[in-house]
Amino acid sequence: MTIGISELSSYVPPRILSNEELSKQVDTSDEWIQSHTGIRERRISDDGTFASDLAIVAGSEVLKRRGLDPGDVDLVLVATSSPDYNPFPSTASLVQEGLGCKNAGAFDLQAGCSGFVYGLESAKGMVAGGSMKRILVIGSEVLSKITNWKDRNTCVLFGDGAGAALVEDTGPEGHVILDSWLKSKGSDAGALTREAGGTRVPGAPESPDPRKFTISMNGKKVYLFAVDAIVRTIKALCERNGNAPEELDWIVPHQANARIIEAAAARLKLPIEKFFMNLDRFANTSAASIPIALEEMRERSLLSPGQTLLTVGFGAGLSYGGNLIRW
Amino acid sequence: MTIGISELSSYVPPRILSNEELSKQVDTSDEWIQSHTGIRERRISDDGTFASDLAIVAGSEVLKRRGLDPGDVDLVLVATSSPDYNPFPSTASLVQEGLGCKNAGAFDLQAGCSGFVYGLESAKGMVAGGSMKRILVIGSEVLSKITNWKDRNTCVLFGDGAGAALVEDTGPEGHVILDSWLKSKGSDAGALTREAGGTRVPGAPESPDPRKFTISMNGKKVYLFAVDAIVRTIKALCERNGNAPEELDWIVPHQANARIIEAAAARLKLPIEKFFMNLDRFANTSAASIPIALEEMRERSLLSPGQTLLTVGFGAGLSYGGNLIRW
Repeated sequence: MTIGISELSSYVPPRILSNEELSKQVDTSDEWIQSHTGIRERRISDDGTFASDLAIVAGSEVLKRRGLDPGDVDLVLVATSSPDYNPFPSTASLVQEGLGCKNAGAFDLQAGCSGFVYGLESAKGMVAGGSMKRILVIGSEVLSKITNWKDRNTCVLFGDGAGAALVEDTGPEGHVILDSWLKSKGSDAGALTREAGGTRVPGAPESPDPRKFTISMNGKKVYLFAVDAIVRTIKALCERNGNAPEELDWIVPHQANARIIEAAAARLKLPIEKFFMNLDRFANTSAASIPIALEEMRERSLLSPGQTLLTVGFGAGLSYGGNLIRW
Repeated sequence: MTIGISELSSYVPPRILSNEELSKQVDTSDEWIQSHTGIRERRISDDGTFASDLAIVAGSEVLKRRGLDPGDVDLVLVATSSPDYNPFPSTASLVQEGLGCKNAGAFDLQAGCSGFVYGLESAKGMVAGGSMKRILVIGSEVLSKITNWKDRNTCVLFGDGAGAALVEDTGPEGHVILDSWLKSKGSDAGALTREAGGTRVPGAPESPDPRKFTISMNGKKVYLFAVDAIVRTIKALCERNGNAPEELDWIVPHQANARIIEAAAARLKLPIEKFFMNLDRFANTSAASIPIALEEMRERSLLSPGQTLLTVGFGAGLSYGGNLIRW
């Protein structure tokens, strides 16, 4: 069996929030945001739109493109850091129902912004394991709904969106997931959190500080971790598979911040052009950023058969890792 | 490769909450609880003890029994419906750090009470996929912390605990995961929810009804679903693998309620003795119930090599499914 991605799609909500508009709500500026992050604008979901809604649009387009009946999907795997409910029912269950995948199982995977990278390898494995044939892996996020819009250090960073991939036996000519490398640095788990809503800081009966229900980040710590995570993931996957980093056709990093990606490129002495970036238009969409990037690369004809791609995820957990893909 | 469970362990907190004690807090009685659920008592975690803490005790015992260094684990997968934080950092990241699994990845899997069944198959797949060798799958729950202790229909049902299994290439003599069957019925997602804490009913800035941060259940709907889920899972896995249900040595169902299990046994015309139950002492520990049951069965020498076991999970999502295991 040669397991890979047979089809892709993505969806972002239509509403654009520009740096300029944002700088009217919080003390920041287009110049500051662009110079510190590379972000120009981001997409924001409506009040009544949630992660499952974005996921259903992206997922249904994948099935259409692939010419599959929803009943042909064996599992809906949703990687998300902004689920509809928390912790249950899973967002994946809502997506399974919304897509009409009546024969599928469903689960949510939580590994922060690395969720899609983890999800691809889980799906590859479950197909390899033999009990399933086709798995829909969706990264979907509405981070705007858990963003602290008064914290100018974090509210400029995030955006909403979804990306979906169908994983199955593609044959050797497919976009094959050659290897994955998945890691965690739980020692710095506190650097990127949503503190309340779990069992440690429950929502009730006391009413915790509302900010605890939003994203909290130690920017410096996460920056240093992220650069290191990109470097380590690329080195490890290349070494394990006999590739030189220079030979990679594309690195598709989680779209957190252009400065992080540039620092990693410099450390690896790789040209920045090898790193695909579209964060200027979508900001950090967490577990959705990599499939949104892949879909844009395909749309823009940047991908061709036989190319070697390396995805790199990093984020809350702190989690990190990547997939080596032969397109 | 023959992938299975190489080692098991479980841990429940020491504090016992009996039906009698519970009936002093809420309008119920030992007689009512036993006749409607089969539950006599449950374990309750301390105020300062969370899902990661229970998971670390169970996981560390697995590594000790298996004679492994924590650095030998490639992934820590935690299935939980009561994570420490929500949605990030993942409970698995805290467990990865707590166990000292310095070379491991980490993610949380959310499929309600079916989480462990889903987790076993994910882990089997990821080992089959070739990028990992040893995966620690842990179901860990502190449902007492999200239980509505004023709702006598649900607060009698749940308990806290954790169970862990190491999944790896065991060779044909191991406890082999032969097949899994994982499903979702998202159309009834609303029947078992924790409404607040996600993005649909956020915790802030408004303060929602505190009850929305606790478990809410449509008992009748879940009962009917659960009986059906057990019957369908057993039939499907047996049919797909050429087993007759009568030939199964053990069925290890999620320990939700004795009445559910009895109704399923009657529908299948199987003797109730084939269904292992320990819910009288632990109640419903969600994603932890199946590994806690397996570990007790092993301790009591109820398992012997070559036996055929079938686990069945069902719960929020609504999710369901099972694993066919040759012990």
